[in-house]
Amino acid sequence: MKKISSRSIDNSPESKKILQTATKLFNGSKKVYIQGSTKDINVPVRKVLQTSSITSEGKQTNPPIFLYDTSGPYSDPDISIDIEKGLPKSRDKWLKNRKKDKPSSTQMSLAKEGIVTEEMEYIAIRENQCVEENGKLKQGNYHLGENFGANLPKKITPEFVRDEIAAGRAVIPANINHPEIEPMIIGRNFKIKVNANIGNSALSSSIHDEVEKLTWSTRWGADTVMDLSTGKNIHDTREWIVRNSPVPIGTVPIYQALEKVNGVAEDLNWEVFKETLIEQAEQGVDYFTIHAGVLLRYVPMTAERVTGIVSRGGSIMAKWCLAHHKENFLYTNFEEICKIMRDYDITFSLGDGLRPGSIADANDEAQFSELKTLGELTKIAWDYDVQTMIEGPGHVPMQLIKENMDLQLQECYEAPFYTLGPLTTDIAPGYDHITSAIGAAMIGWYGCAMLCYVTPKEHLGLPNKEDVKEGLMAYKIAAHAGDLAKGLPSAQIRDNALSAARFDFRWEDQFNLGLDPERAKSYHDETLPKDSAKVAHFCSMCGPKFCSMKISQDVRDFAREEVKKQEEEMQKKAQEFRDSGSKIYNEI
Amino acid sequence: MKKISSRSIDNSPESKKILQTATKLFNGSKKVYIQGSTKDINVPVRKVLQTSSITSEGKQTNPPIFLYDTSGPYSDPDISIDIEKGLPKSRDKWLKNRKKDKPSSTQMSLAKEGIVTEEMEYIAIRENQCVEENGKLKQGNYHLGENFGANLPKKITPEFVRDEIAAGRAVIPANINHPEIEPMIIGRNFKIKVNANIGNSALSSSIHDEVEKLTWSTRWGADTVMDLSTGKNIHDTREWIVRNSPVPIGTVPIYQALEKVNGVAEDLNWEVFKETLIEQAEQGVDYFTIHAGVLLRYVPMTAERVTGIVSRGGSIMAKWCLAHHKENFLYTNFEEICKIMRDYDITFSLGDGLRPGSIADANDEAQFSELKTLGELTKIAWDYDVQTMIEGPGHVPMQLIKENMDLQLQECYEAPFYTLGPLTTDIAPGYDHITSAIGAAMIGWYGCAMLCYVTPKEHLGLPNKEDVKEGLMAYKIAAHAGDLAKGLPSAQIRDNALSAARFDFRWEDQFNLGLDPERAKSYHDETLPKDSAKVAHFCSMCGPKFCSMKISQDVRDFAREEVKKQEEEMQKKAQEFRDSGSKIYNEI
Repeated sequence: MKKISSRSIDNSPESKKILQTATKLFNGSKKVYIQGSTKDINVPVRKVLQTSSITSEGKQTNPPIFLYDTSGPYSDPDISIDIEKGLPKSRDKWLKNRKKDKPSSTQMSLAKEGIVTEEMEYIAIRENQCVEENGKLKQGNYHLGENFGANLPKKITPEFVRDEIAAGRAVIPANINHPEIEPMIIGRNFKIKVNANIGNSALSSSIHDEVEKLTWSTRWGADTVMDLSTGKNIHDTREWIVRNSPVPIGTVPIYQALEKVNGVAEDLNWEVFKETLIEQAEQGVDYFTIHAGVLLRYVPMTAERVTGIVSRGGSIMAKWCLAHHKENFLYTNFEEICKIMRDYDITFSLGDGLRPGSIADANDEAQFSELKTLGELTKIAWDYDVQTMIEGPGHVPMQLIKENMDLQLQECYEAPFYTLGPLTTDIAPGYDHITSAIGAAMIGWYGCAMLCYVTPKEHLGLPNKEDVKEGLMAYKIAAHAGDLAKGLPSAQIRDNALSAARFDFRWEDQFNLGLDPERAKSYHDETLPKDSAKVAHFCSMCGPKFCSMKISQDVRDFAREEVKKQEEEMQKKAQEFRDSGSKIYNEI
Repeated sequence: MKKISSRSIDNSPESKKILQTATKLFNGSKKVYIQGSTKDINVPVRKVLQTSSITSEGKQTNPPIFLYDTSGPYSDPDISIDIEKGLPKSRDKWLKNRKKDKPSSTQMSLAKEGIVTEEMEYIAIRENQCVEENGKLKQGNYHLGENFGANLPKKITPEFVRDEIAAGRAVIPANINHPEIEPMIIGRNFKIKVNANIGNSALSSSIHDEVEKLTWSTRWGADTVMDLSTGKNIHDTREWIVRNSPVPIGTVPIYQALEKVNGVAEDLNWEVFKETLIEQAEQGVDYFTIHAGVLLRYVPMTAERVTGIVSRGGSIMAKWCLAHHKENFLYTNFEEICKIMRDYDITFSLGDGLRPGSIADANDEAQFSELKTLGELTKIAWDYDVQTMIEGPGHVPMQLIKENMDLQLQECYEAPFYTLGPLTTDIAPGYDHITSAIGAAMIGWYGCAMLCYVTPKEHLGLPNKEDVKEGLMAYKIAAHAGDLAKGLPSAQIRDNALSAARFDFRWEDQFNLGLDPERAKSYHDETLPKDSAKVAHFCSMCGPKFCSMKISQDVRDFAREEVKKQEEEMQKKAQEFRDSGSKIYNEI
């Protein structure tokens, strides 16, 4: 393969350390694959094995539970990983064939032509619930209950994926120069996705740190990762990230463009931006945040805000507009940008440069004016067959969240919404993963397609590895809570399995089915460390004599007996009734 | 004072350690008081001082921000605390006078008679926003904006508090034997409150640990504390907690009753329960969770649930009912219980013994049948002038939360709702403070009056001190987000002040106005530890050259100039128009 960079990450202790963590399997989990229509469509699934239940009727086996898996080849013990070489290029063949048949096509243009790509088939399999029948793995249904997800297909078919892409209701971020990714989809008729931001700044962190955060993010469930680096080695950092990422990578190209003009916003121009765009497109970035909706006339609308413009990209463009008293060059050159993005099949993430940075500024004129412009730009992008999603706020109190979602769908023609939080209060620096997980769960329920995580360090500093994990856990919760509320009962399979394990005192199963098996186990072990406690039918909260679960199991047995007795009694009565000639009233 | 217990906590190193933490003031904060109509009505407020802003027009002072304060006398440097003696009995005089005039009265009976108690006046002052005028402290308004809280009074008056109590829409948990508390109110027309559970189990923790958790809880904003001890020294632990608590204490008396019959639920009976009730009432417990709604006929409804009965009290009573095939003795003796509670003015917290323990079991027949019964019991309690609130679930997915709130208001005649979470998914053991903060914020918005916290140890073990804090932070966020969404803009004063400080780079103010000043500061210092960075107009996220906030301030200045220019232009045009004779159309 081509040399990734002049500065090489060799098989150094740092690289080994990264791999040691990234390749560690979760306890009780196995990596398996479901094959599609061809041999090279292999969709990864995490299989969580369960122990048996001990019931009054004897031992009962519990089926394995299959989970969506974002961890990439790192968690496959059969694939050897070399960070210096990057991940296997699993999409190479598809891309080469396509290039022959359809040069400069995008997933959207192909979908509009009625073509189902390999990526679409892969995604259809991935979004359905996996099931095991007679020891064989196969695609199950997407939703299982009659009362849920009534507006969704029972099964996600490749054709359904195609139609959603063609309509612009979903995107598949997949640069033709990023063959390493495992295809995934962002759209409100699919599982809610989560993005993790990483990236160094001028002040801290190294390339190794960022590759470590990348693999760490996908291990903990990140569906996409944004590299927001602004410091030194911005190009090389990105190269290492892209080559080692099994998930789509997003960037904000204006950050690097600004570095090129020494951080002076006024010195930016279309040429330096275009050059940066092509540089990053060549590397394989899958989606670009472009702040093309920050129009000159909107900037004064932010003057009386409590927190002005808080988006970095938004403030850069606002400053440029004011300094030159000209319209935003991302807006005036938007069709040029579309052409570049189309050539690589890069997805737009139209940035909300005027998003509110405080509760006081939520849902104001500046924010909604920009949203309207993003809608206009969406139509243009679609004319070029460029896939498009829309970024959203920010800081929004709960009662104003739904308006954001509803307006976005209306103004942007149902293009997928991708929000940061929203944070539901400003008063908790150090806990903004929580202030924002509340808003994220709600907007996910209302129809948001992807949630950009917020870490505990938000507003205070750059997240380290532990912060990345805390942010991801909060957002996996938000996304899952949103999936449940939206009515995807395939999501509830995991809740039901975990709760059944909890009720059964299958402690190990409860840990392994959770979002963070390691933490669950270590918390349990703090008070009841002995191994025997893992099979004990009680826990440290109430102790052995006092356990509500245990009492409840007795109650259940008792109640079942009661119901059985009643039914027997009913049948007896029914028989008597039949025997007596089936008359409703006895003759007087 | 009477000796608290045979086992004495002396001025031991443990006691000193407790006080060291409990009496530590938050950086930048001062304890102040607002006086009511008499000298002994002194309502504590936390005053957060702010630094000045450096603007283009020079230095501008920023007003202090006043916050609701739950920390009690511990944070008053003028009061010396002795854990062995307990807190000052500040309500003693009121209670003695009342005993003379109105023996066996309750806040509710007095309210129905039209009497405003000292507690009611205290609460009215406490719920309003405190303001400073000419260096003097006074009560401000409850809500400040015209567009907010339209259904709420502009100012909370003592009479409004009285009327809410008389109507049963709010409760003031305040046992006549707990003179140490600072009165507070729970009702949906007031600030949303937060409860912290503490308590040891048979397996772990000491009395010292629990007193430490108590003071730790109120330091971090707990409005009430429940002592859920089940282990040894249950009586003494409670005595120490009550005597040292500035907030109302709740318990679940059936736990101690069960201890008295050696943990065998079937051996429980009315006599042992009544004896326990009186024992705890005498000590000064302010509210009792009573699972009187777990009726015999409801128990079989739980048989097919995924997680049966998860409430400890609920499962105990269910077992008793089944074992004896008799109706719940808490239900059959409910009027007797009312008489005891009336004598001490203890508040009912009618327990939801059949709350769902998993997403699968939410909003089922068992749960809502019990809720209906709790409504019937509320009416009976009110006939005895016993204040009453209703406990709620549990595990509930987002889309089913509102139904809980609406049904509760309807079935229980608007008695205050007090919910545990609800948890919006089952899949995150180790993070249930987050799964539940999502549901708690939402149900708070919908009208829930008090939120019972959930710690990260939920389902796994007993919370330690750090877990208590994590749980409280998540719930202070949920309650505050709920207050904002409900439309109490006095809540938004804090958000606005913090956001303004953030935008101004007044780092210390941002930390001090946050829920956890210590953590905010330490997170900031991880990347920018130098003191000079606290006044720096940038942070570690973007570095000095690249700061959106800084750019945004430039933009603001620029935009203000623009607006000014435009206005001048307009005025010039207007003047020209006037000068030309004020004709709309020039004559043709």
